Amino acid sequence: MAKNITPRADDYPQWYLDVIKAGDLADRSPVRGCMVIKPHGFGIWELIQGGLDRRFKATGHTNAYFPLFIPQSFLAKEAAHVEGFAMECAVVTHSGLEQDGEGGLKPKGKLEEPLVVRPTSETVIGHMYSNWVQSWRDLPILINQWANVVRWEMRTRLFLRTMEFLWQEGHTAHETAEECEEETRRMLDVYAEFAENALAIPVLKGEKTESERFAGADRTYCIEAMMQDGKALQAGTSHNLGQNFARAFDISFQSREQKQEHAWTTSWGVSTRLIGGIIMTHSDDDGLILPPAVAPVVCAIVPIYRKEGEKENVLAYARKILVQLCGEEAVAAAEAGIGNREILNIVLPGDSRRVVLDLRDGMRPPDKFFHWEQRGTPIRIEVGPRDLESGNAMVVSRHPREKQVMESGALTSDWLPSTLETMQTTLLERARTFRIQNTRSVDTYDDLKAALEDGGFFLMHWDGTSETEAKIQTETKATIRCIPFDDALETVNGTVDVREPGIDPVSGQPSAGRVVFARSY
Amino acid sequence: MAKNITPRADDYPQWYLDVIKAGDLADRSPVRGCMVIKPHGFGIWELIQGGLDRRFKATGHTNAYFPLFIPQSFLAKEAAHVEGFAMECAVVTHSGLEQDGEGGLKPKGKLEEPLVVRPTSETVIGHMYSNWVQSWRDLPILINQWANVVRWEMRTRLFLRTMEFLWQEGHTAHETAEECEEETRRMLDVYAEFAENALAIPVLKGEKTESERFAGADRTYCIEAMMQDGKALQAGTSHNLGQNFARAFDISFQSREQKQEHAWTTSWGVSTRLIGGIIMTHSDDDGLILPPAVAPVVCAIVPIYRKEGEKENVLAYARKILVQLCGEEAVAAAEAGIGNREILNIVLPGDSRRVVLDLRDGMRPPDKFFHWEQRGTPIRIEVGPRDLESGNAMVVSRHPREKQVMESGALTSDWLPSTLETMQTTLLERARTFRIQNTRSVDTYDDLKAALEDGGFFLMHWDGTSETEAKIQTETKATIRCIPFDDALETVNGTVDVREPGIDPVSGQPSAGRVVFARSY
Repeated sequence: MAKNITPRADDYPQWYLDVIKAGDLADRSPVRGCMVIKPHGFGIWELIQGGLDRRFKATGHTNAYFPLFIPQSFLAKEAAHVEGFAMECAVVTHSGLEQDGEGGLKPKGKLEEPLVVRPTSETVIGHMYSNWVQSWRDLPILINQWANVVRWEMRTRLFLRTMEFLWQEGHTAHETAEECEEETRRMLDVYAEFAENALAIPVLKGEKTESERFAGADRTYCIEAMMQDGKALQAGTSHNLGQNFARAFDISFQSREQKQEHAWTTSWGVSTRLIGGIIMTHSDDDGLILPPAVAPVVCAIVPIYRKEGEKENVLAYARKILVQLCGEEAVAAAEAGIGNREILNIVLPGDSRRVVLDLRDGMRPPDKFFHWEQRGTPIRIEVGPRDLESGNAMVVSRHPREKQVMESGALTSDWLPSTLETMQTTLLERARTFRIQNTRSVDTYDDLKAALEDGGFFLMHWDGTSETEAKIQTETKATIRCIPFDDALETVNGTVDVREPGIDPVSGQPSAGRVVFARSY
Repeated sequence: MAKNITPRADDYPQWYLDVIKAGDLADRSPVRGCMVIKPHGFGIWELIQGGLDRRFKATGHTNAYFPLFIPQSFLAKEAAHVEGFAMECAVVTHSGLEQDGEGGLKPKGKLEEPLVVRPTSETVIGHMYSNWVQSWRDLPILINQWANVVRWEMRTRLFLRTMEFLWQEGHTAHETAEECEEETRRMLDVYAEFAENALAIPVLKGEKTESERFAGADRTYCIEAMMQDGKALQAGTSHNLGQNFARAFDISFQSREQKQEHAWTTSWGVSTRLIGGIIMTHSDDDGLILPPAVAPVVCAIVPIYRKEGEKENVLAYARKILVQLCGEEAVAAAEAGIGNREILNIVLPGDSRRVVLDLRDGMRPPDKFFHWEQRGTPIRIEVGPRDLESGNAMVVSRHPREKQVMESGALTSDWLPSTLETMQTTLLERARTFRIQNTRSVDTYDDLKAALEDGGFFLMHWDGTSETEAKIQTETKATIRCIPFDDALETVNGTVDVREPGIDPVSGQPSAGRVVFARSY
């Protein structure tokens, strides 16, 4: 157990902060609620961005960029939207600073109309689309934006809930309600597939209840993940906005039948909170565990030597293994780079073989082991004088935690991706098993209350009213995470048919089926 | 000549706007001074980002992310910096909006200390580095940030000068003044190499005079490009900040000699203004010309058919050519993608072969030709029934403007990159020739004044004082673009030795050498 990390059982929130600190992922900033994403954390985000961007483009989307600022009056145009977003947002009221005469500064140049720092961009993008769309021939518009957004959150938590965060927001406009719904569902599927295959986070797909819906949406779909403390994390949402924003911003077009109609729009987003989800799905009391697909470094080779004579031979041996893994060309290119003085960093674009050779002098091997381990590196290869003699290497895997002596000849360019692939699958399966073991049906309100103390997802009947939902939330802090898409869900007690009608145990009213209750981040 | 584009000779600024509109690169936004970067314009930016990011990583930098907001008091800490940036910036004073009782909204929740939307991030990053640096072992820090920044500009121009813009800002900290200077120069070299090889924009490298220096820097280096109207565009800057920000934010460390010392820092940046530079370096009266390295689509295949029977055969023939260019695997993958209903879009990551097959029905071939031409697509391949019969294709190149019948068998996966390479070089050489032809020595102030009316770079002696510089700027609107690094510069009258001492014709005082005067964007 790492001494710098509080065990989960002792203090889960502190464990989370300790893992972030030990993993060098992020830091607090001098601005309340804003975080600094450090290089290792940002490396994870770059891999998330790359993986999603490929998927967005394969589904026909292109990227664009819209303004950071939104005129205050825009927020008022969509009634539900203003309720959801205008109340807590950063408001720009001045265009400069001037000396205040006491050695400090004060705002000057009051704006005629205040500007809001975008909490989300439906309004300003809606305004632009109204200019771009005249005819059905201009549809669909399939645009995504990578951006920062600001929401004035009072209680913030690194990655999970910050005042400013990085995200992507897709905004599409369509000719028909059917196409719009198809797009909303398609992007939810893209998110779910990405969460499972890249982040190794199993997710439930479903629809949000009315009270949890995006402000201005007709329907909000979500992917929900279970963290290790049994709480839910909303990992991504996809909104069918119907014609609400098209009406508010007049996105209208001449249809194939020569009629003037409003477009149908969607929006969908995931954010840097996914990094919080990765941490809380996979890591343990020793610190960060990263799924290989989003690990900035998948394999660190650490040479071990004491005397100068040893150093030269061990480094040559370590380099030989590096070449086996990544090819002579990539290694030579890295060696030629100015940026590789201490850590020889091999990056093969579009390839999983992100390998480093840790050449740092003046750092002892155990400290290097610790360095890579704390950063969640999936595989470490240790080579010392004895390994050189025997032609072996010590291969240490982060999950499952294993040490294994391997013949160095076996460490090939095929071995590495296939080992990573196995680890990726193992992590996903472990998380899936965890979720199943912590998901169960409950049939009485008392059962739900008691069960919530242990954490988990609970399938319970619900009468479909916001009143019952609100009552449960007030009394238990649990919310309906989603009305699941699947007809049946796996639980610790076997498969449960969630479509079977029953009675809401809270209201005593009839229920069309079970929904997923949980406390959440 | 395209009817929707004003000729350069008639109205250069209008031509620039027309090219942007016809090329579908950007649009005005409802927020004064902010622009919308449309998908085609953003595609160029993505290629710029990719090319620079690779170069930054090869020189040892990693990406990170710092807050959008900066506490007002931070800006006051570096005396020169506050003068340069605090006066024109967006100031956040409130944390929300509320109903104003008249159907509108008004700001609520006044902040104790206003926040400034970052105009650049030296201050907040300096604050973080002071926490991260304790010992010489923590140095160097080599971080880059891709971000949006806001400067309250009064006169804005799409891409060239906007209130919000996208950029990257590198921020590094070093042990010694020598390392710091080395880094500052290295990154300028990276910018220059990128401008020439990727953007096909030849640049002059040099140092800014004191009055043009970054607010808070000891030395500012720049790359300067010449636009087609003879004006200069500052395309990138690299600043040696000395110990100024380290002192203001207390970035100090224990040295190898156990002394407490301030770090030496740099910053360097390029922005979306590079897209303006690309437009004004290469495009002509027919519209956009893009260097292949930053063209989102390098080759568009347009099938020509009238009758249904023709369509099938022509499409099969066009597909065959597409497969020759990109390989069956990539084409089949694109065809399987949901996003390729109308334009089959082949993107091979890290490859120059970004090719489309334009399958749009209900659009006449000449309209398709126009569509791709206006977007600056380097190569167009037209195939119709007659080409099918003869086994040929019409290959149309954007620059030089050529039409050429080629055997379809010659359109191979080698032919395309090599043709693009040639076009890339041709564009760079054309721009270099243009610059040389519009660069000359001037020896009298009257000569300078007269010459400035035609535009161009003028090498003139300067006495090294800010007074003379200011006088020239006031009287002629020309500024010293840089004190060039090169000892000699090529001009229309041959090579000029800029280090030869002489007399400043404006002040009559001695001059250590010639500097580059021009009007600029």
